[in-house]
Amino acid sequence: MAITVYGDSISGNCLKVKWTAEHLGVAFEWIEVDVVRGEARSDAIRAINPAAQVPTVVFEDGRALAQSNAIVLHLAEGSALIPKDPYWRAKMLEWMFWEQYSHEPYIAVRRFQMHYLGKPASELDPKLLERGEAAFARMEAWLQASPYLVNGGFSCADIALVAYTRFAHEGGYDLGKFPAVKAWVARVEQDLGLDPLDF
Amino acid sequence: MAITVYGDSISGNCLKVKWTAEHLGVAFEWIEVDVVRGEARSDAIRAINPAAQVPTVVFEDGRALAQSNAIVLHLAEGSALIPKDPYWRAKMLEWMFWEQYSHEPYIAVRRFQMHYLGKPASELDPKLLERGEAAFARMEAWLQASPYLVNGGFSCADIALVAYTRFAHEGGYDLGKFPAVKAWVARVEQDLGLDPLDF
Repeated sequence: MAITVYGDSISGNCLKVKWTAEHLGVAFEWIEVDVVRGEARSDAIRAINPAAQVPTVVFEDGRALAQSNAIVLHLAEGSALIPKDPYWRAKMLEWMFWEQYSHEPYIAVRRFQMHYLGKPASELDPKLLERGEAAFARMEAWLQASPYLVNGGFSCADIALVAYTRFAHEGGYDLGKFPAVKAWVARVEQDLGLDPLDF
Repeated sequence: MAITVYGDSISGNCLKVKWTAEHLGVAFEWIEVDVVRGEARSDAIRAINPAAQVPTVVFEDGRALAQSNAIVLHLAEGSALIPKDPYWRAKMLEWMFWEQYSHEPYIAVRRFQMHYLGKPASELDPKLLERGEAAFARMEAWLQASPYLVNGGFSCADIALVAYTRFAHEGGYDLGKFPAVKAWVARVEQDLGLDPLDF
């Protein structure tokens, strides 16, 4: 399998795909799409993904697939990143759906507004900080008792959740308040062969 | 398999689980949880789901599972609701992640604010209508050429997407603008054995 990834290097959602492909040894070509400049809404992207979002991948047969977590799960089919046990596989999906609904919309959005659009914290919706911290608190409670999110082993859920967690400081979040989350980030970075971020 | 479902009968996310269980003949007990009155944040729900959200299901062995789409996928494992082909299975997941990120946060939220909190349209964030209609437009383009969302067959993606689409009129959306979506809603209602909503 060789794939083409349309993605923005500053996007955690896009990096999930890159890290998964690298971890699994899937060959890929990366086509940079600048989200801040609106390139995800171009005709070229709409032709492969009518939702006009990245990441979008295109397989050798020309078929396309979008949504970061759907792509990660597809690349990982049959690998150790997906638990064999049906219940734990479902718990992995639980974390991944929760990530897109209760984590990314606060943590990724606050980072984008502060770090890339340059808005001061005082101009941001206070719900972003409050709900982002609630998401980290939920992860902290779980990770105090477990090295990974699903049944003690490294899975797609860790890749999905680490994506924006490791950039949280760029959104003004202090991971020092969540030591088990911080230790888990370092663990997942090591599993993925990523240079640790200094925060 | 017999399960206990903690859910609110007015929530499309909770109804997804009910409809899937009924369709597949999975026995379940339904415990009503009133979201408007804040019952999802009770200690009883937090004990089974630290995210304090419904639906949450509990299996006979006492283990719990949350996130509507993760529950639907788990109940449907091995059934005709999940395509056997890996690519189409991934496309099903693409629609389901898109639903939670680009459909539910506008369409379900506007319905909740108008129909259950009684807010007039003039007080709502105009982005809710705009982005909800963009979601319907995307579905319309696909459904003009296909009877279902994934590879021509009824799947978990149809259950996930129909949940709030069939209540869209309660959020002030006019599905008359999206005739293929409207026809698909009727088709899925029939597949699920639901009485058609009059809208």
